[in-house]
Amino acid sequence: MSTVISAVTDREAERLRRATLSIVNEPGHPGMARLVAAHGTAAVLTALRDAAAGPDLPGALRQDVAARLADADPARELQQAASQGIRFVIPGDPEWPGCLEDLSRTPVLHERGGPPVGLWVRGAGRLDQLVAPAVALVGSRSATSYGGDVAADLGAGLARAGYTVVSGAAVGIDQAAHRAALACDGPSIAVLACGPDRAYPKAHAPLLDMIAETGVVISEAPLGGAPTRIRFLARNRLIAALSQGTVVVEAAIRSGALNTASWAAGLGRVLMGVPGPVTSATSQGVHEMIRNRDALLVTRAAEVVEAVAPMGEGMVFPLRAETGARDRLTMHERQVLDAVPVASPAPAERIARTAGLQPPTVAGALRRLERAGLVQQSLGRWHLRVGDAP
Amino acid sequence: MSTVISAVTDREAERLRRATLSIVNEPGHPGMARLVAAHGTAAVLTALRDAAAGPDLPGALRQDVAARLADADPARELQQAASQGIRFVIPGDPEWPGCLEDLSRTPVLHERGGPPVGLWVRGAGRLDQLVAPAVALVGSRSATSYGGDVAADLGAGLARAGYTVVSGAAVGIDQAAHRAALACDGPSIAVLACGPDRAYPKAHAPLLDMIAETGVVISEAPLGGAPTRIRFLARNRLIAALSQGTVVVEAAIRSGALNTASWAAGLGRVLMGVPGPVTSATSQGVHEMIRNRDALLVTRAAEVVEAVAPMGEGMVFPLRAETGARDRLTMHERQVLDAVPVASPAPAERIARTAGLQPPTVAGALRRLERAGLVQQSLGRWHLRVGDAP
Repeated sequence: MSTVISAVTDREAERLRRATLSIVNEPGHPGMARLVAAHGTAAVLTALRDAAAGPDLPGALRQDVAARLADADPARELQQAASQGIRFVIPGDPEWPGCLEDLSRTPVLHERGGPPVGLWVRGAGRLDQLVAPAVALVGSRSATSYGGDVAADLGAGLARAGYTVVSGAAVGIDQAAHRAALACDGPSIAVLACGPDRAYPKAHAPLLDMIAETGVVISEAPLGGAPTRIRFLARNRLIAALSQGTVVVEAAIRSGALNTASWAAGLGRVLMGVPGPVTSATSQGVHEMIRNRDALLVTRAAEVVEAVAPMGEGMVFPLRAETGARDRLTMHERQVLDAVPVASPAPAERIARTAGLQPPTVAGALRRLERAGLVQQSLGRWHLRVGDAP
Repeated sequence: MSTVISAVTDREAERLRRATLSIVNEPGHPGMARLVAAHGTAAVLTALRDAAAGPDLPGALRQDVAARLADADPARELQQAASQGIRFVIPGDPEWPGCLEDLSRTPVLHERGGPPVGLWVRGAGRLDQLVAPAVALVGSRSATSYGGDVAADLGAGLARAGYTVVSGAAVGIDQAAHRAALACDGPSIAVLACGPDRAYPKAHAPLLDMIAETGVVISEAPLGGAPTRIRFLARNRLIAALSQGTVVVEAAIRSGALNTASWAAGLGRVLMGVPGPVTSATSQGVHEMIRNRDALLVTRAAEVVEAVAPMGEGMVFPLRAETGARDRLTMHERQVLDAVPVASPAPAERIARTAGLQPPTVAGALRRLERAGLVQQSLGRWHLRVGDAP
């Protein structure tokens, strides 16, 4: 019994330490992730508070966090979060998604990297269950109506196929994807760059509330955290890591969605892009990704599912035209059919001359074409069946 | 002197024999191409006229051509062609393009294959010179205005880059590509499924005349030949063979342009496709080609040139956003910049607290950001420079 209590106490002590690190440290600081992995949170916090104790930390890191460490009150932060229905999930919790650990084996990008020290989570969904399986739909804030429509189609299709839609709850593609999934009763994960209690943009507060009803709204930043540029860069790595694949729906050459794409590729996740008009600036980034980054071109949800599903599952057959009577013709029959006039009926001999074939061959072919409903005769003269002109 | 005369006579005799085969044989009959390669035209014609003499021919082939062989008058045909400014070009002529011989090493497709026995050619261009270099632009007859615009952009861009545009002079993509090349004074090759003296559709007679002014209009079918289904299939292989690469601009799942694409792939030519809206039926075939046939996604003429040009020539650099002052910032400077308010100016200490950095670090960063023109101060309070909000 006392072992259980002590284990619980240890876990809550670890949660307090990780909450402290979440408050004082910028999300996605790769050095912090490495230090925690190597020394544990207790030793790192000791060293941050006292340069003489604990492991040797880079001076820059200690300077960065020192300003915030003095004010940090993790117990109060956890309590405030709980009062708003926000929990702080850490590695070892049943809800912690193992896929985030892949970030410890992924190169640093724009000075961000490594698994988060913990995640602030709001919502009725359980994160570890939501990510199995999950697909990220990301793209331009300045989406076109085409992009919005496609994001909605994909979001709905993935939700119906049982996939959680992961995105950033921004305007444009993100919002279209989340909303379409919700409309199909599919859960969604919104990964924020700001604190879990904030909405950015503010107008998306109702959207976030809806997502939290069945899914989760998560953030690496503490309560009240502002959505800064580097937090967006850090946030993007979580979107990619939480999904089996990332689909970029629309992205200009400079879009932040391409940063998420880089994370997906670096993590060995499936990277996909939806093409669009080459004349549209918001499709240029996607086309570039397909041309130069080996992203898979996808046009519908079934193709996304095929790409991310385990081998052999979710296979889609390529679009094919329906085969009709014409497709089953021999080459001679086709030659004869080509020689049959559309309008003014012709005798078999003239058809034979046009086709460059012997009359008996042509006579046999004409009878078979008649049975196939492709030609008809009257008074020994042949013409094509209406509606079957080439 | 007599050797020269005899060589000329031999060549003209061969031209008469090949003209005969062109008249009696359906374009792209793969068996005929093989027989001519193995036995020569004289032996094949002898065997066609008399089953007992010459090499053993398949009965079906003999039957196919017998109906036309009795009427064939190649000398009159050549004369009639010449009177309309049409020449019959055969292998060994200086104008014969060597690239057509690649067809003898390419698998049969839809019962068509092999190099042509000769080509009926109209126009001021010299075919062997026009194909070096040449790119095929093909696509749907029922092109959208988007497809037409892109075909025109590519046609113009390729013409300006010194490439001959090869296409089929049909409505839709073909016509847009030809016209744009002509408008840029670029020569064009129109490959017809009908005889070289015909226009299909009739309304394209002026377009073909324009093409013939600087380029060529060519066909494997003899004078007066009708544009039949199998002649389109045979024609497509010539479009692919005459070009270093084939670009499919728009194609529905069932488009004939995909047949040309198959020829290009089979010939080892570069196969390219222009993406479009996934909601457009005329882009579905192209997307399928990029997904399942390893076609290269291209969005502009420079990318086409890069793909078909010999290694190292015509390299294009991927589209990149311009790099600005923001891209050259250190991570600390970026964190400080993120913490500087847009509107109501803040003192450095408050910015330091927001950024979570030491005041001296922030003070240095603010000075560098000011020099870079990203922030400005008045009375010791800092704000972002106008027009530079994130």
